[in-house]
Amino acid sequence: MKFTNHLRRGGSLFVIITYDIGEKRITKVRKIIRKYLFWVQNSVFEGEITEGKLQKCINEIKKVIIEEEDSIFVYKIYGNGRFEKKIIGLEKSVNDEFI
Amino acid sequence: MKFTNHLRRGGSLFVIITYDIGEKRITKVRKIIRKYLFWVQNSVFEGEITEGKLQKCINEIKKVIIEEEDSIFVYKIYGNGRFEKKIIGLEKSVNDEFI
Repeated sequence: MKFTNHLRRGGSLFVIITYDIGEKRITKVRKIIRKYLFWVQNSVFEGEITEGKLQKCINEIKKVIIEEEDSIFVYKIYGNGRFEKKIIGLEKSVNDEFI
Repeated sequence: MKFTNHLRRGGSLFVIITYDIGEKRITKVRKIIRKYLFWVQNSVFEGEITEGKLQKCINEIKKVIIEEEDSIFVYKIYGNGRFEKKIIGLEKSVNDEFI
């Protein structure tokens, strides 16, 4: 297991975006997020970003998704230890019959 | 968009686990993680946990997955502002041809 603590401390904002999005919209959403963050797992983007750029990214996403069907989590980790989770669309989106 | 800052501050540890796992192993892994954290999106579990329980969870996962094929990220957000990302298996697992 690789230990990675590459995140800059101090005033920056580190963001993790995870999502469950309908097939028809997922490519468009990935293209949007990819302009702002790093694509690291199929449903996960991460990276350092400013509040302004993050808001721009979220505004673009909201024009594409259907909030009643799609689910996006924006985990915000601030350099000063503050931590927030913002939810766009569904609060929970899991296919329970899988387990 | 709902603002959620429900996370207890102080000495606790909040963890987000995201994953890309082969079809044959994914149900087993979900059953393991579900004993420790909340399933919130298809490839995302989250919640507060102790270091000891998290290590137990990770040890169980490692017995099931194939590190050359599967990718698991463990984002650890401490109450004191420390933040770590641990990687089990592949460091990056995205299907680039999708965008």
